[in-house]
Amino acid sequence: MATPSPTPSGPVGVVRVLTSADAAFVGTHGRVLAEAYGLETLSRCIPDQPHGIHDEESERRAEPKIVALAEDMVRDGARAIVISCAADPALALVRRAVPVPVVGAGSAAAGVALGLGTRVGVIGITEGAPPAVRSLLGERFVGAERPEGVRRTTDLLEPEGRRVTVESAERLVAAGADVLLLACTGLTTIGIGPELRERFGVPVVDAVLAAGLLASFV
Amino acid sequence: MATPSPTPSGPVGVVRVLTSADAAFVGTHGRVLAEAYGLETLSRCIPDQPHGIHDEESERRAEPKIVALAEDMVRDGARAIVISCAADPALALVRRAVPVPVVGAGSAAAGVALGLGTRVGVIGITEGAPPAVRSLLGERFVGAERPEGVRRTTDLLEPEGRRVTVESAERLVAAGADVLLLACTGLTTIGIGPELRERFGVPVVDAVLAAGLLASFV
Repeated sequence: MATPSPTPSGPVGVVRVLTSADAAFVGTHGRVLAEAYGLETLSRCIPDQPHGIHDEESERRAEPKIVALAEDMVRDGARAIVISCAADPALALVRRAVPVPVVGAGSAAAGVALGLGTRVGVIGITEGAPPAVRSLLGERFVGAERPEGVRRTTDLLEPEGRRVTVESAERLVAAGADVLLLACTGLTTIGIGPELRERFGVPVVDAVLAAGLLASFV
Repeated sequence: MATPSPTPSGPVGVVRVLTSADAAFVGTHGRVLAEAYGLETLSRCIPDQPHGIHDEESERRAEPKIVALAEDMVRDGARAIVISCAADPALALVRRAVPVPVVGAGSAAAGVALGLGTRVGVIGITEGAPPAVRSLLGERFVGAERPEGVRRTTDLLEPEGRRVTVESAERLVAAGADVLLLACTGLTTIGIGPELRERFGVPVVDAVLAAGLLASFV
């Protein structure tokens, strides 16, 4: 951040890292943040990546697009940027490129979890926690679980999705987790946070909501 | 947290670790959180410590009182507890004692700062950052500054208080800080956050506000 935000009253720009021509789909996370915090949001997706970010090559390819999109949104009045992916792709690059606060869903979720508990269990769809999350948690990382049979975010929408997610949470709590971090935005989509909190009695940190919480702070 | 919150709609209990018979003083932080987030709050202070927590002996003496106060407030309906001190006194003890989420101002501020930047500069009134803050920041800790001539929180209210605080912030930003953490609630009292953000163009994390932010999340 080189200078103060030029438009402190503008919307929060939400970068989706998955290409879609469906405006309602692109706006999903923005709507969640509008409902949760009353934030005005502006959602756009990067071009030409219909499968999003799923490996190093696709992440590297997405980075300049994320930077360009954030710059566009700041030009159009965004007072803060949310990179709505738990891997925090291009976070450092975007922070250098735009003069407004930039929040990555992964580091936001890790930060919020560290403020709510001391032993953090991570649920996601990759092997292990995203590095952006893992590196912040340090010694407070209890473990990462991928719900059984889930490989892609859309697998969570299957009938078994909720059950296998609850089983993952159960293993993490049994391992000592006193806070759960949902590191896949598909878990936001199925809205399983409240059920896990109710069932296990621990705070549950949804990465998209955590990012919006921090964006509402600045 | 052994069980879910029994009263999810109750107020947030704010524990003040400084004894005062002045209800308006005891309620200061609660009012800040009510204004910032629309939170309903309930503020109480521990007994017999008019000088608050200022060394190991006074912290050890305060711990059982903080636990008892938190238990009282949960009995009276608090749905979450904020320990409103950047040193996070008795945080682990209170978490074991009550069945609702417990937030310490120090770890909350560190968590929020980690979500907003990568090099955190801490301003406080002690030598070095509070251990509760320092341990969470890890490699992202840039440095801690105590404003010149300031030893007690009330020194910040002196005519020079704002100027020396700005000078501390300037040194931290020059050292590479891309986010500032205000680790003394006296800095909340003088309301210097917005001025620092405006002047240096970096997010500024007030410990009391960060605690309230996380309490509003759970």
